[in-house]
Amino acid sequence: QLYASVAQHFSEGVLQGKRVVITAGPTREAIDPVRYVSNHSSGKMGYALAIAARNAGASVELISGPVALPVPEGVKYTPVSSAVDMLEAAESSVDQQCDIFIAAAAVADYRPEQVPEQKIKKSQDKMVIELIKNPDIVASIAARKDKPFTVGFAAETQSVIAYAEGKLQKKNLDMIIANDVSDQRIGFNSEDNAVTVLWQGGRESFSLQSKSLLAGNIIDLITSRANYSKN
Amino acid sequence: QLYASVAQHFSEGVLQGKRVVITAGPTREAIDPVRYVSNHSSGKMGYALAIAARNAGASVELISGPVALPVPEGVKYTPVSSAVDMLEAAESSVDQQCDIFIAAAAVADYRPEQVPEQKIKKSQDKMVIELIKNPDIVASIAARKDKPFTVGFAAETQSVIAYAEGKLQKKNLDMIIANDVSDQRIGFNSEDNAVTVLWQGGRESFSLQSKSLLAGNIIDLITSRANYSKN
Repeated sequence: QLYASVAQHFSEGVLQGKRVVITAGPTREAIDPVRYVSNHSSGKMGYALAIAARNAGASVELISGPVALPVPEGVKYTPVSSAVDMLEAAESSVDQQCDIFIAAAAVADYRPEQVPEQKIKKSQDKMVIELIKNPDIVASIAARKDKPFTVGFAAETQSVIAYAEGKLQKKNLDMIIANDVSDQRIGFNSEDNAVTVLWQGGRESFSLQSKSLLAGNIIDLITSRANYSKN
Repeated sequence: QLYASVAQHFSEGVLQGKRVVITAGPTREAIDPVRYVSNHSSGKMGYALAIAARNAGASVELISGPVALPVPEGVKYTPVSSAVDMLEAAESSVDQQCDIFIAAAAVADYRPEQVPEQKIKKSQDKMVIELIKNPDIVASIAARKDKPFTVGFAAETQSVIAYAEGKLQKKNLDMIIANDVSDQRIGFNSEDNAVTVLWQGGRESFSLQSKSLLAGNIIDLITSRANYSKN
């Protein structure tokens, strides 16, 4: 594979001794015992980042919502379902030690306010689900006193760069990866991606490439922005 | 495998020349381009029934929502996403020819009324999703003048037999399979299942067994109730 050799050439050992925590995949928010709200995240980008960070020598924990991907070898794997579960796992992992936190999960913004213990019966012609805001996981991590280098994602269908710029500032992130998910070639379930990475006072665009190759490039960029020397 | 030999012994050729249409898996109902409502159906029971019907000599079409299972060999496979798509595929398949229709899919009862073309932004503290009733696929098929032998499922978390009995009558089904999904051993994602099968004036209970074995037993029971002779 092209990516394997590229990654080993540029990144080998550069994250030795660093602990990287990555969230990936969608979350599922229960409506009742059988129904849920979720989204089309495949987890591929987050899993590729976990592999790239591991290849760069980091100790990696991957906190993942339900996806259909194999667990990468050599990473600590923590499966979760809801956003509340994911926040708890993320806080607990960062409590241990965390140098770089990458929030690649597509966390559900809202969850149903009431979750009955029994399946809701189909009696009415209409049904209304009232949702409340979920915790903002990446913002919670970025608000910590002992904040790691914190990387967010902005998966949008319009005005992608503007929304990403806003999130970078508002959530106090070190870096944000802007992803136009309205484009089928680079959307949630595709093998390839093209993104623009933004930070305070700079940005870099990556053209269409495999998520594996892109993950290696993003890990290189994080390493460089976080000022980890290459030896 | 035990099941393979059992099925071949009792069912071999009994559905030769018959066309069996089976729905399986969950449906996904779009909230916006990235979010959806779905349920925990794994598709395992429906896929096992498709394999058992094929093993009994039937020509099988499997209309499936998104699941993580391999497509069974030797069946016509029609992937769908929403309940509206699934209804359309089912009606069109039954239009061709259908002797037995088995509705094993966990069709979403409701879908969001409005589906915006852009991702809904997280601006409000609360969000309300208004849902309308989805078409009732098994009831639509059972209401046809040229109605096939129609089998439904009742996946419930309480009063399972009573709800199943009600559905059998109200929807004019020939048979219904009552499944208590509150029991983790036999729920949506387990390998095993235990069910009670009900028809007009009769019922039969199947104790905990693999979904493969159970599927063979259900196909035998359908064959017997539909009065297909064994040679």
